[in-house]
Amino acid sequence: MLSRVEELFAYECDALTLHTSAAMAVVFPRSTQEVSAVIRACREAGVAFTPRGAGTGLSGGALAPEGGVVIECSRMNRILAVDAENRTAVVQPGVVNADLSKAVVDLGLFYAPDPSSQLACTIGGNIAENSGGPHTLKYGTTTNHILALELVLPDGQVARLGTPAGRPMGYDLVGAVVGSEGTLGVVTEATVQLTQKPQGVETLLAIFPDVVTACRAVGAVIRSGLVPAALEILDKRTIDAVEASVYAAGLPRDAGAVLLTELDGPAAVLPRQVEVVERLAREAGATRIDVARDDTERQAFWKARKGAFGAMGRLAPDLYVHDAVVPRTRLPEVLEKICEIGDRHRLKLANVFHAGDGNLHPNICFDRRDPDEMRRVLAAGEEILRLCVDAGGVITGEHGIGTEKRDFMGLVFRDVDLTPMHWLRDAFNPDGACNPGKILPTPRFCAEANPKARGYDRVPFDA
Amino acid sequence: MLSRVEELFAYECDALTLHTSAAMAVVFPRSTQEVSAVIRACREAGVAFTPRGAGTGLSGGALAPEGGVVIECSRMNRILAVDAENRTAVVQPGVVNADLSKAVVDLGLFYAPDPSSQLACTIGGNIAENSGGPHTLKYGTTTNHILALELVLPDGQVARLGTPAGRPMGYDLVGAVVGSEGTLGVVTEATVQLTQKPQGVETLLAIFPDVVTACRAVGAVIRSGLVPAALEILDKRTIDAVEASVYAAGLPRDAGAVLLTELDGPAAVLPRQVEVVERLAREAGATRIDVARDDTERQAFWKARKGAFGAMGRLAPDLYVHDAVVPRTRLPEVLEKICEIGDRHRLKLANVFHAGDGNLHPNICFDRRDPDEMRRVLAAGEEILRLCVDAGGVITGEHGIGTEKRDFMGLVFRDVDLTPMHWLRDAFNPDGACNPGKILPTPRFCAEANPKARGYDRVPFDA
Repeated sequence: MLSRVEELFAYECDALTLHTSAAMAVVFPRSTQEVSAVIRACREAGVAFTPRGAGTGLSGGALAPEGGVVIECSRMNRILAVDAENRTAVVQPGVVNADLSKAVVDLGLFYAPDPSSQLACTIGGNIAENSGGPHTLKYGTTTNHILALELVLPDGQVARLGTPAGRPMGYDLVGAVVGSEGTLGVVTEATVQLTQKPQGVETLLAIFPDVVTACRAVGAVIRSGLVPAALEILDKRTIDAVEASVYAAGLPRDAGAVLLTELDGPAAVLPRQVEVVERLAREAGATRIDVARDDTERQAFWKARKGAFGAMGRLAPDLYVHDAVVPRTRLPEVLEKICEIGDRHRLKLANVFHAGDGNLHPNICFDRRDPDEMRRVLAAGEEILRLCVDAGGVITGEHGIGTEKRDFMGLVFRDVDLTPMHWLRDAFNPDGACNPGKILPTPRFCAEANPKARGYDRVPFDA
Repeated sequence: MLSRVEELFAYECDALTLHTSAAMAVVFPRSTQEVSAVIRACREAGVAFTPRGAGTGLSGGALAPEGGVVIECSRMNRILAVDAENRTAVVQPGVVNADLSKAVVDLGLFYAPDPSSQLACTIGGNIAENSGGPHTLKYGTTTNHILALELVLPDGQVARLGTPAGRPMGYDLVGAVVGSEGTLGVVTEATVQLTQKPQGVETLLAIFPDVVTACRAVGAVIRSGLVPAALEILDKRTIDAVEASVYAAGLPRDAGAVLLTELDGPAAVLPRQVEVVERLAREAGATRIDVARDDTERQAFWKARKGAFGAMGRLAPDLYVHDAVVPRTRLPEVLEKICEIGDRHRLKLANVFHAGDGNLHPNICFDRRDPDEMRRVLAAGEEILRLCVDAGGVITGEHGIGTEKRDFMGLVFRDVDLTPMHWLRDAFNPDGACNPGKILPTPRFCAEANPKARGYDRVPFDA
């Protein structure tokens, strides 16, 4: 257990650096029984508790309330079983996402959800936030790959959700727990679906004069009926940042946008699919199209995409990776307005996004020590959310709600739509002691019943 | 509204003819507002209410408690919107499953879940029971195809679950409502995912000396990495029943089992996949393999499969289509024991099953007017469930729990696993007035608080 101020510092925030909150203690359980014991002890002491994975979350879901206990699950990192024939694995929550795929590579399998943080983030954290990644377009988010869970309930009891067969039976609570950000209990074991490695992969990098033409190509590919594994766009600002960084991938500096397309599937159909994408990209206005000739070239193409966050991180001490979804057809106009919002607020804003499923990531480089810039970041962030919702979208694609977007749930949902969410949360977690302040406002009676669990202290919003 | 005894007769049971229960009245709302008004009226009158689709359900989910009101949704049968580019449709609950696919066929789309009753059953009923079908192996059950719902809550409020973008945000309650059998409210609108019609389809009919060798072929196909659209087995008893009926499809009377395999996907890969299946089937012991040469032949192959229920229905007035799932590798031994159970109880029992995903359908022909036979049917049914659970399976694959299996939930779940299910159900439906007696026992205080809603009267079990 860590409890000294300097030890707790690392647990004060997650990768959403906008919000911070100092926990009372951090514990590192090694088993389900220890998690249950910690929760019962927290209850006895009248303190709140918050599960945490690798802390790579982008919406503040792993932030403990001031004075609460962090249950850090990284030591529960064993792969308990792999069933090659049924393509399933049973894992503890602290297993690192990429390590699971590595462990089953010789069986011709992989774990499909691939957040950009997959070398660090854990399956438990992915479950909490229903994480996605570049390959969500074809393979879906985490919720599409979780068959069953072991969950320590907020009262310390240990329940199993779902069935060993992976077939829902009775009320299907697995989907409700995935994405619930640790507010319904602490996941201590997950049965996940593994995916068969595709026979072949083809990766194309297409250069466009601007984002509008790149988006036109994306629409054409989707309408053709192809389901690429990934369709990613980098805008000009991102290209500039990448090429000025150690992640430079030789992208032409006069490019207006880059479209990265990955196709996977039976080797026999890929050449024809590559032809179709090439033709559609050219028709949409691509000025250059490169097809990776081997795995080394494929890695180089992805380097630009995956290095984008790092490249932007060089421009300022803090990076706000925003997350919203709009209908694919609205992408060009929404992107233009997002850049206008960034400019108006004098912010360094660049876009990398999962174009195939309309999942935007406007990235804002900033310095949180500058209160004026901080205010502008928050103002721009809110404007972007309102813009996306007005365009028929939603305010998160794969990062969750956490503390970041809790107060914006009303942009998408009416009060009556939030009512059943409150019913669910309060049924599991009636006093709000289990990860308070996330997704929905913590009920007032929590703070009343439990003065030590003061709820999440929203520093920037209250400032 | 229907309320005369002779009018109510048709609503006394669903396709699970084991249980019956006479409603007080049947109403036919045409809009969300009317459903809400009915629910509020039921609350005022202190009576329970049960939503109902086409009444083709196989677990008793649509049975009203004695003295309750049936909310029959068949008049809410409009397809409200189709979005070809995003491959979604917004439908009312009374839309017939097959009609939806028919309506989008010109767009090259279809609605994937295909229960054998798809010419009659409704999307609302499919959502209630999380229905599957022969193509579940590749395409999943209903839950994999529902993006958002409008739900009249048990207190009459109208909420929307999920988002227009089909992306979960906040607590994902859509999955919890799918399969909840109308106990969390009445679905009045659904946004469904449509699926692109595959470029090509190939259907193979393979004859085997016995079920063991047919199952061996199924295992080999799955292990090869192919994901067929369907892998269906008919056992010898089913073949005999089919060939003795108007559904006769020319199956060899000396066959021990028939394996129907459907492959779909890009035209370029299908010939090779057909070769692989043919080779694996032959290696497993197939004595004859026919590949459908055209759509007419494909229909003929499916006629045997789809006619199986009708063929068995000829043998007795009632047919109990049982439903359970076992790990694929345990199929041969479990099937042998199921036949032994049927024989021991002197019942006409035959097996048609979704072999690819281990979903068994032991079908028992019986006459419910014969109390002794009825007792033997129920005894055999219970033995089959225990057998499947002992083999590592679950007690329903695609028919739901309803009244049929409510008292067997404990075979799969411990009390603590049922606790969060109770929390969910009671949070939405605290007095149990919304479709009482399904999935979980109705809380005692329901009957106490509401003497008219006596809970489901389980005639056969109490007899």
